[in-house]
Amino acid sequence: MERLEKQIQFLLEMDKEKSIKRQTRCTDLHMENDAEHAWHIALACLLLNEYANGKVDVSKTISMLLIHDIVEIDAGDTYAYDEKGQQNAFEKEYLASERLFSLLPEDQGKFLKSLWLEFEENKTMEAKFAHAMDNLLPIILNDADEGTMWKKNHVSVSQILKRQEKTKMGSTILYDYILSIVQQNVDKQNIIKDVEI
Amino acid sequence: MERLEKQIQFLLEMDKEKSIKRQTRCTDLHMENDAEHAWHIALACLLLNEYANGKVDVSKTISMLLIHDIVEIDAGDTYAYDEKGQQNAFEKEYLASERLFSLLPEDQGKFLKSLWLEFEENKTMEAKFAHAMDNLLPIILNDADEGTMWKKNHVSVSQILKRQEKTKMGSTILYDYILSIVQQNVDKQNIIKDVEI
Repeated sequence: MERLEKQIQFLLEMDKEKSIKRQTRCTDLHMENDAEHAWHIALACLLLNEYANGKVDVSKTISMLLIHDIVEIDAGDTYAYDEKGQQNAFEKEYLASERLFSLLPEDQGKFLKSLWLEFEENKTMEAKFAHAMDNLLPIILNDADEGTMWKKNHVSVSQILKRQEKTKMGSTILYDYILSIVQQNVDKQNIIKDVEI
Repeated sequence: MERLEKQIQFLLEMDKEKSIKRQTRCTDLHMENDAEHAWHIALACLLLNEYANGKVDVSKTISMLLIHDIVEIDAGDTYAYDEKGQQNAFEKEYLASERLFSLLPEDQGKFLKSLWLEFEENKTMEAKFAHAMDNLLPIILNDADEGTMWKKNHVSVSQILKRQEKTKMGSTILYDYILSIVQQNVDKQNIIKDVEI
């Protein structure tokens, strides 16, 4: 059962995803971790795929979302608005992908790596809609938390608009919805208004 | 956008799943919560479905796993080996399902409720394999944690065998794998040997 043993060891390694903290607070005010986030956006994909700009393979997109952050087990989380960190993140994450996916039987390692690269390259409709999910939920949670993390990190409209470019590629309807939430938080002075929305 | 607003409110309500603690420790020793668990077993389903006793619709099974515990937002987690609690759990969970799924647009509420009931009724291959995933990962995590929670809760072989009946219906291969782990933990005196394995 060498194959099963490899799969189990990979799943045990994946447990570390539950320790990687993000810069978003949940409704009970604990800092969200990557596993919680991945679950939440996979569920969001199941419910919101009707708003994708084009037809998406929902099953493939959910699989992509389940694994999209696992490279952070080695590379750590890079905050969405840490521009310098974002520039260096991919190299570290690629190295992580080499190590992590090689734990699996070869066929499954290749499959998950190609799913992860598809997400990163952001060319297919599935990858674009996956990014929309990845970007929508932190907005919803930050809004519910009265913008605490936006205020703490001095986040501005221009930063959010840049981040949400990918959301627009995945879903213009959800992009517009996000803009309305951002506007409300600008009005409440939770987000710095450096440019017009 | 009344439909989208309902979906977003449901997703925000789902955030509470991240607060529901289970009786399993993660590798960093924090008590696992329902969202982390759901993510982990959905990923496990993606990788281990080849061991199902029959053909499973993987996409449907993953969707089922993503929502299988959300009723615990109202009903709370019932420990796998709390027999009295397990007897009363379904009634509370059914009431929870009525409230939670009614937050969604009617079509999606019906869809998720039918998925949840399918899991609970455990008649289809998808539901049986979903239970196998739900039962396998706590064994893997408890074993990695040197049986701390088994020892703390005085768990016996007969309790585990009863719980794992559903695993056998989903995957005899994974059931046998679990038995080998249970035997190792009996040998280490992490699990009370009240019956033969």
